Amino acid sequence: MFKLAEQLEKDTALVGELSLCQVLLMNDAQYPWVILVPKRADKVELLDLSDEDYLQYCLESKQVCRVMQTIYQPDKLNVAAIGNVVSQLHIHHVARYNKDATWPAPVWGKLPPKAYSDSEQQEHLVKLRQALNIKEA
Amino acid sequence: MFKLAEQLEKDTALVGELSLCQVLLMNDAQYPWVILVPKRADKVELLDLSDEDYLQYCLESKQVCRVMQTIYQPDKLNVAAIGNVVSQLHIHHVARYNKDATWPAPVWGKLPPKAYSDSEQQEHLVKLRQALNIKEA
Repeated sequence: MFKLAEQLEKDTALVGELSLCQVLLMNDAQYPWVILVPKRADKVELLDLSDEDYLQYCLESKQVCRVMQTIYQPDKLNVAAIGNVVSQLHIHHVARYNKDATWPAPVWGKLPPKAYSDSEQQEHLVKLRQALNIKEA
Repeated sequence: MFKLAEQLEKDTALVGELSLCQVLLMNDAQYPWVILVPKRADKVELLDLSDEDYLQYCLESKQVCRVMQTIYQPDKLNVAAIGNVVSQLHIHHVARYNKDATWPAPVWGKLPPKAYSDSEQQEHLVKLRQALNIKEA
């Protein structure tokens, strides 16, 4: 049975659920950062998904990219399946700006996260739910 | 018209062509590292691809992951569209090992590349072409 990895639960807030993926907002106010986690047990690589789930993941990733492009108007989107530390399959979608804290370096392992205030986080969650047409859990 | 970005041309060797993407081998002997570049002009984000090209990219990415899994048997595959430095759309596929030079950190911007010897590079190119069923250009 699918259960979100403890570290991901600790580092993020739940935006909501798409058909395949949980949508999480990384609790790091330095960058708009969404993580998709396919709700399938014991998956580590994108390759571990069935053909059907893989295509569904691709569609949901594109949907999230489009929404982040619209809401955040970044200079660049970074989309990455890394998972060297937390093995549960999860895919980062990060809105990057050429004036953000680590530009042009990738965000992983660079700076400690800066938590959102409750109201800031809430604002992001509401915007993302609206744009993704997701109901609050 | 599509033309490979100068920096990518400099940093890689050509494995060959899939239907949508050029397949490049990063000239860094520290990790087996393949880069896919959709042969479409002026693309920066995955979102910039047409729906049809995006799905084709997803299939070619999965094919490359499967081949790298088989040939290199990594501990983890890292798949990432970053592009903060070279803007032409290109997607990294890196075979990672828990004893490699930068594990568990992502590879980008960590260590200067170590070039392959000609024979090592040739060996990778031949293996990848065979596994991807690509003819030498």
